[in-house]
Amino acid sequence: MLTKATLRHLNQLQQKKYRAEFGEFIVEGAKGVGEALRSDAEVLLVIMDGSLRDQADMQIVAAAGQKKSVPVEFCGRKDIGEIKTTDTFPGVLAVVARGDCGLDQIADGTPIIALDALKDPGNLGTIIRTADWFGVRNILLGEEAVDPYNPKAVRSTMGSIFRVKIFESTNLVHTLLTLKERYGYQAVGLDMAGRPLPDKNLVQETGQKTVFTFGSESHGVSPELASSLARKYTIPGKGKAESLNVAVAAAIVMSRL
Amino acid sequence: MLTKATLRHLNQLQQKKYRAEFGEFIVEGAKGVGEALRSDAEVLLVIMDGSLRDQADMQIVAAAGQKKSVPVEFCGRKDIGEIKTTDTFPGVLAVVARGDCGLDQIADGTPIIALDALKDPGNLGTIIRTADWFGVRNILLGEEAVDPYNPKAVRSTMGSIFRVKIFESTNLVHTLLTLKERYGYQAVGLDMAGRPLPDKNLVQETGQKTVFTFGSESHGVSPELASSLARKYTIPGKGKAESLNVAVAAAIVMSRL
Repeated sequence: MLTKATLRHLNQLQQKKYRAEFGEFIVEGAKGVGEALRSDAEVLLVIMDGSLRDQADMQIVAAAGQKKSVPVEFCGRKDIGEIKTTDTFPGVLAVVARGDCGLDQIADGTPIIALDALKDPGNLGTIIRTADWFGVRNILLGEEAVDPYNPKAVRSTMGSIFRVKIFESTNLVHTLLTLKERYGYQAVGLDMAGRPLPDKNLVQETGQKTVFTFGSESHGVSPELASSLARKYTIPGKGKAESLNVAVAAAIVMSRL
Repeated sequence: MLTKATLRHLNQLQQKKYRAEFGEFIVEGAKGVGEALRSDAEVLLVIMDGSLRDQADMQIVAAAGQKKSVPVEFCGRKDIGEIKTTDTFPGVLAVVARGDCGLDQIADGTPIIALDALKDPGNLGTIIRTADWFGVRNILLGEEAVDPYNPKAVRSTMGSIFRVKIFESTNLVHTLLTLKERYGYQAVGLDMAGRPLPDKNLVQETGQKTVFTFGSESHGVSPELASSLARKYTIPGKGKAESLNVAVAAAIVMSRL
């Protein structure tokens, strides 16, 4: 049985402003909560459906929580009806502290994936998951990008949000300039009009200190952003589709780093 | 003002069984409807929000419809309230005949992308869009895959559904056998355990007559399917993510064909 205060807090975390105010976000499901508990992230609270506590996956989560001294609260049917989640209640969820990082942490000498005005949380989550697969550690988000701690984005990362560094810029053009002047990074863009992307070993052409920049789903790289780019690349296609999904384009770039 | 029969028919097409029974599906939005009208697909009916008929994009759609002698019906606010769509009414939609194709049409001597138990309509739509981008013409769906004419899948294709051939198998293992015996195709699978995917020119290694087979989002290639595969490939990763999104994996494969 959860307190009214806990329920209210959980539901506030569905909103971006409260996630920012509290510096916390919610991870849903046994897989995601398990990944959070195995990572360096600070897990503040685990909420579990009391009727599922004997299930094997829930016992693994509960044990991992105890090992890290994270409080595990069990909830009943009535609580579950009052907790907002992206879908039906996933059996377990956790409140996790955001590991906000500074620009110096993502400027670690290896490639950065920058996402300007990405609006779709599923696409952002998929890009974070793909980055984690290919060992890309650094994500830079523009001021108009969707919140990476949005529950749908978190779910789409499949636990990778705990292993990738994310810097949220308040002015992407300015951040790219700082990355250039202070850290020696150049920015390149992916767009419909650019030179063909090399088949392999992209960093041989660009160098490790490169920000690979993607525009919005519908409009590509914006004119303001284009002036910050050393060059543009295009993923060569021979069919008739007008464009690629941004998560697909980012995956193809990351597969060639 | 739409008739009750038209409204009922439109809403029936939200369901897979009626789409199969009538051999029709719905395309939503000015972009999708425009693509349908420009393609070889048989467009049966266009439904447009009468209050938007003077908008430039709607006028282009209406003109394209007239040119092809497709009836364009205008609907009012009351109709719109009764039409089921994936989101708010997109201004215009069309009823299109499914261009169902035979196995011989997808066995055209070039690579085939096979999707076994793909459940997510967005992932399927993205794969069709990506295939169209890279000039891959042939899609083979397993018996447990989501309906490609599901409205969400159609929307995610961004019009590419009209340019890619789709064969819906009722028994994928059997279809792979037929493709081998009758058309000389070999099947390979993408999985967590396989040889590393070559960086480029994948067909140099596999030959053009290859079916690239992908399993479900959560379980990869099933054991039953595995026995039909000449070999398995893995997309090399060096991070810690457990897997890649299936649309991302398919995109990386198609980018190397």
